[in-house]
Amino acid sequence: MDSSLVPFGNPPTERADAARNREVLLCTARAMIAELGADRVTMDGLAERAGLGKGTVFRRFGTRAGIFRALLDAEEQRFQCQVLSGPPPLGPGGNPVDRLIAYGRARTAFLLARHDIARAAFERKGPVQPAAGPDFSRPHIRMLLGQAALGLPDPDTLALQLTSALEGPPLLFLTGEPPADPAERCYSGDLPTLLGDSWQALVERLARR
Amino acid sequence: MDSSLVPFGNPPTERADAARNREVLLCTARAMIAELGADRVTMDGLAERAGLGKGTVFRRFGTRAGIFRALLDAEEQRFQCQVLSGPPPLGPGGNPVDRLIAYGRARTAFLLARHDIARAAFERKGPVQPAAGPDFSRPHIRMLLGQAALGLPDPDTLALQLTSALEGPPLLFLTGEPPADPAERCYSGDLPTLLGDSWQALVERLARR
Repeated sequence: MDSSLVPFGNPPTERADAARNREVLLCTARAMIAELGADRVTMDGLAERAGLGKGTVFRRFGTRAGIFRALLDAEEQRFQCQVLSGPPPLGPGGNPVDRLIAYGRARTAFLLARHDIARAAFERKGPVQPAAGPDFSRPHIRMLLGQAALGLPDPDTLALQLTSALEGPPLLFLTGEPPADPAERCYSGDLPTLLGDSWQALVERLARR
Repeated sequence: MDSSLVPFGNPPTERADAARNREVLLCTARAMIAELGADRVTMDGLAERAGLGKGTVFRRFGTRAGIFRALLDAEEQRFQCQVLSGPPPLGPGGNPVDRLIAYGRARTAFLLARHDIARAAFERKGPVQPAAGPDFSRPHIRMLLGQAALGLPDPDTLALQLTSALEGPPLLFLTGEPPADPAERCYSGDLPTLLGDSWQALVERLARR
């Protein structure tokens, strides 16, 4: 143990236990979601399966939605690492227009694959929570628009609109019923591919000088 | 009274009273929002000022958020009438690309002007409610994309993405804090103009063949 990091008393063990419990709970929640679906993961079920007290689960996550929010945060971090330091075209190094296209495809696939977790992460009570995703997407898209130098007058505002174009459709499917006609087609077709292809066509048209 | 519309007994008077109470409450709510701001409109205050029982207000609107939802619905109807049968370029008759630009500008101004009402219309309890706006914007944008014949491969999916690009930014400002950097600029500048100009540049670039 590095004494410079652990100056006094017993807290390191407590902290290490807390971190371990958190990891056990997240891993157990992932396994339960895969087996049972997000709808059937409860605080009681999670505590029992993880072999931990219900009080520990409440202290870690506060509410049932808190479990799913912690899972989403962990996945979001992994996604952001791929964008910030993974291989091109998603990671750094390629042409900015190709990178913008790759980002839209990857982000759409990411959001749709975590659809049930994101839905379960909504707190049903308390104030409406802003989604965390746009806080990463908007500056990233803004940076790529700047590098691509598309000659459009206001890349700041355009980045906000393109972020909504990207993050919005998966969110629309999150709340309530999906819109009637194209959604049926989308669900019966392959939604990530349809949205990814359409994003690519949009970006290519924007990039045409 | 037209007897063909009112075939039996006394319900017309009851219905007329209910409709009148509803109008009185909506008008009173509008006046109170203008004077006090949406945050300070309460069920009790509304009942007192309208000279109606609190029970009547509850029966009409259910919750405080219900008042604001009813107001939004009424305004939304008026907006949709302008789009469906008002003068061009927003209403029918003009070039579809011009109409798409006019729609984006009008919709953005509409959403931002009703920002405080929309915020207050969120139910803090109960299931997350899908926004009603996209159900009108998406088919309208889809129709105009079809008329404009832009040569893009999948106008159904593009309409969904453009609807999000349009409805999303005002929604982002609805929930929690606005994003830090360009938002400050947006708030200090003229947000409807910035979003409207950027929408126009986006549509013009899409329409360039």
